[in-house]
Amino acid sequence: MTGTVIWLTGLSGSGKSTIARAAEAELRASGLRVEVLDGDAIREEFSRGLGYSKLDRDENVRRAGYVAGLLAHHGVVVLVALISPYRAARNQVRQEMAAAGIPFIEVFVNAPLEICESRDPKGLYQRARRGEIPSFTGLEDPYEPPLSPEVECRTDLETVETCVRNVLNALKS
Amino acid sequence: MTGTVIWLTGLSGSGKSTIARAAEAELRASGLRVEVLDGDAIREEFSRGLGYSKLDRDENVRRAGYVAGLLAHHGVVVLVALISPYRAARNQVRQEMAAAGIPFIEVFVNAPLEICESRDPKGLYQRARRGEIPSFTGLEDPYEPPLSPEVECRTDLETVETCVRNVLNALKS
Repeated sequence: MTGTVIWLTGLSGSGKSTIARAAEAELRASGLRVEVLDGDAIREEFSRGLGYSKLDRDENVRRAGYVAGLLAHHGVVVLVALISPYRAARNQVRQEMAAAGIPFIEVFVNAPLEICESRDPKGLYQRARRGEIPSFTGLEDPYEPPLSPEVECRTDLETVETCVRNVLNALKS
Repeated sequence: MTGTVIWLTGLSGSGKSTIARAAEAELRASGLRVEVLDGDAIREEFSRGLGYSKLDRDENVRRAGYVAGLLAHHGVVVLVALISPYRAARNQVRQEMAAAGIPFIEVFVNAPLEICESRDPKGLYQRARRGEIPSFTGLEDPYEPPLSPEVECRTDLETVETCVRNVLNALKS
């Protein structure tokens, strides 16, 4: 059985990890093998030394895609929760999964910047506004939204439950 | 079901990948899920930018251990074929696997340096002798053999078949 890569992209504070963790719990309860790779773990575990230039961000996305693909190849449903701001890098992962016969579901976790900044769960926007984090996505650095994601979650308008249900429906179909 | 990490360490040309690929074929034929992570793929897929200092080699080993652990956690038998010259870094992986409840089999793929150099399947010793590869393990850089590996394969004395059988016996027990 081949797994699936569910790729959650969006601004910091948009709700990627929240949706990933809630979906993980439901999928695990239904007996599937599930793994969440989130941005912090990816940086810590196999991207130490990479920075936040476009080149380094794209390499970070490529590595996350590679590891997710390895797991999915062995039947794991992998939820990747990663800002992954550049469209071309995400599409590169999509193409590699297609070439490997692994289903790929891109989930655009979308909320207006102002909402994400008001949530600021890790205090990162505050630090970025003070100039302590250069190249912060959404402020100095661009975020390129997906043009045709399989799922869009409007986390400023929809509940977590609705978002998770839409992600799981996409997985079933 | 939890998988296993089979960690093949040894000099370049000692026969790590040969044993890994042969074991992979047998394990797959018996219906297990198997993945080989070899040194070149590890460098290419999630360690671009790392060099060959002790620090970078140790980080490379750590990453390989992390990815192998992720796969084994989901039931995959993972064969890691990596020079991994430093004992402490290998033992660190061993400890992390133990903490995660993942069986860890260290395989010392052992042949005298002269034999490895005479095989030189990738021409690396030749290049290193010409000064084109600094910090080459076994020449300028040290190789610290395991003190108590689960398996030792003497590839100068034993056939590939014998080596694979010894690895698979360790896996069964």
